[in-house]
Amino acid sequence: MEDWGRKSVVTLALTVLTSSQGLLIAASKANGVKYDYAVTSANCTVETTKMLMSLLALVKIWRTVGVNEDNRISTSWSELWVYPIPAALYLVKNLLQYYVFLYVDAPSYQILKNLNIISTGILYRIFLKKILSGVQWSALILLALGCTIAQLTSGSDQVLSTPFMGLMMAIVMAILSGAAGVYTELIMKKQPKRNVNAQNVYLYLFGVIFNMVAIFLYDYDAVFGRGYFYGYNAIVCTMILNHSLSGIAVSLVMKYADNIVKVYSTSVAMILTTLVSIPLFGFQLTLPFVLGTSVVSVAVYLHYQSKDTPQPPGALTK
Amino acid sequence: MEDWGRKSVVTLALTVLTSSQGLLIAASKANGVKYDYAVTSANCTVETTKMLMSLLALVKIWRTVGVNEDNRISTSWSELWVYPIPAALYLVKNLLQYYVFLYVDAPSYQILKNLNIISTGILYRIFLKKILSGVQWSALILLALGCTIAQLTSGSDQVLSTPFMGLMMAIVMAILSGAAGVYTELIMKKQPKRNVNAQNVYLYLFGVIFNMVAIFLYDYDAVFGRGYFYGYNAIVCTMILNHSLSGIAVSLVMKYADNIVKVYSTSVAMILTTLVSIPLFGFQLTLPFVLGTSVVSVAVYLHYQSKDTPQPPGALTK
Repeated sequence: MEDWGRKSVVTLALTVLTSSQGLLIAASKANGVKYDYAVTSANCTVETTKMLMSLLALVKIWRTVGVNEDNRISTSWSELWVYPIPAALYLVKNLLQYYVFLYVDAPSYQILKNLNIISTGILYRIFLKKILSGVQWSALILLALGCTIAQLTSGSDQVLSTPFMGLMMAIVMAILSGAAGVYTELIMKKQPKRNVNAQNVYLYLFGVIFNMVAIFLYDYDAVFGRGYFYGYNAIVCTMILNHSLSGIAVSLVMKYADNIVKVYSTSVAMILTTLVSIPLFGFQLTLPFVLGTSVVSVAVYLHYQSKDTPQPPGALTK
Repeated sequence: MEDWGRKSVVTLALTVLTSSQGLLIAASKANGVKYDYAVTSANCTVETTKMLMSLLALVKIWRTVGVNEDNRISTSWSELWVYPIPAALYLVKNLLQYYVFLYVDAPSYQILKNLNIISTGILYRIFLKKILSGVQWSALILLALGCTIAQLTSGSDQVLSTPFMGLMMAIVMAILSGAAGVYTELIMKKQPKRNVNAQNVYLYLFGVIFNMVAIFLYDYDAVFGRGYFYGYNAIVCTMILNHSLSGIAVSLVMKYADNIVKVYSTSVAMILTTLVSIPLFGFQLTLPFVLGTSVVSVAVYLHYQSKDTPQPPGALTK
């Protein structure tokens, strides 16, 4: 029961934080603000903030219960070597993102990104060895379809004439992003007793390192010429704080829930963001959005009403 | 097992006949043929053809097994009085159709017609007292959503600004059409041993009578001025034959399967018609059609994979 409560809280936190993330972006656009900051710098600050927050939480725990085997910060190479892998997968995915737009236009990419949901389900099944029932698979496919339908615009039909190369790259990117998520869950759950804040420190440490590399590769002139914090205003700082908190929420979902919960949370967040944007920013309600949201709602119902399927002996415990 | 086989055959027949119905209409449009015949005359001929076919089948049965309690054509008022009710419900629905277009435009009406699927499910539950499981309800809602999504066009968004009066009329029409279907099933199954051809003769007899009334009300001048068969060419005759056969298939589905099977069959037929129209008539494949078809496919899977739910004692036997 306590387990169920913790799972619900982290799921809710992820949904709310991801929704407000979308709203912050919409709010900044509605004000017509153009950002001058370097994206790589912001990403690096997010990783650093997450690492410092986890470290702070860890210090607090040390003061309460003392340092022990589960919450110590010292580690071995055998524990540490897995942590750079998700960061590396994301890096390759983000590199590919620069090339995918040579073959795929922006509205089509928005549609193809939903392949992510399917690839996460497949990789989750393969690597975490957890079985989804027929109804749960149907729900996951409906979640991807519903999100796609909700995002339909007049330009979406172009996705049907996506060149083969663009489709392949979109699939590879979906696999990389799904693999990064599933691998993170694998790391977090492989040591169920290890304190999540200690695990986060390692995870985000490599996030900081990889993002620093990205600064040197792409934004050296901007960041070193104008200064690291150039362009940081109140909205940018709020967005960075929000990204940091939702990043930590993702880690907690990986530890206490799973990748399937994550895709449902972020999909529902996408719907909520649009719904709240209608009264707030005068967004137009479209029929595809209404129909897509209905499909997503049925998907969520189907996923949660279907009983937990028995897991094979090899499956990881939650 | 024999029961299951018969159910499958009538379901398949209904799907194929309804698909070819759509294709015949598309073919006639592709040729640019404009019909001169009166629609009321064609409807009346369809009812007459169905009645004659049922009578012919009955005569054949009499010759093989002789006349008995189940296949006799003679009847009592207590048996007969229920048969005009579905025809009357359809008549009211068709009358309403003339007024609904005062409030609802054609693309919106196309969208709203899918409410039919939901109303059939609700009335089926209420009047036939059969229970659908949570998954089967989800599947039915998804079927309606999928059909709507597959039919999305650039004009569909107008449905969101349908006036209240138009929406109410569309709902009433959906209820009338659902009620006619459910009532027909009730009639066909109330006497499970009664020969379906004898039941059809009564059903179609009132179809003929009601359609004659319609000729007098709406098309008196056209039909009596130019002659009943004016404008009947080869294509019109083929369409009438096709309508007659699919009408009989509907009756058989009501007798040996149910209204839920009927909505699945006709929805799948709508998808098949569009699919076949792409190579045949150069229809453009749209993304909403692909996504809607996927949702319908998941709905069909969910409906058939979910185990039959236990029926309460009051439910009708198949």
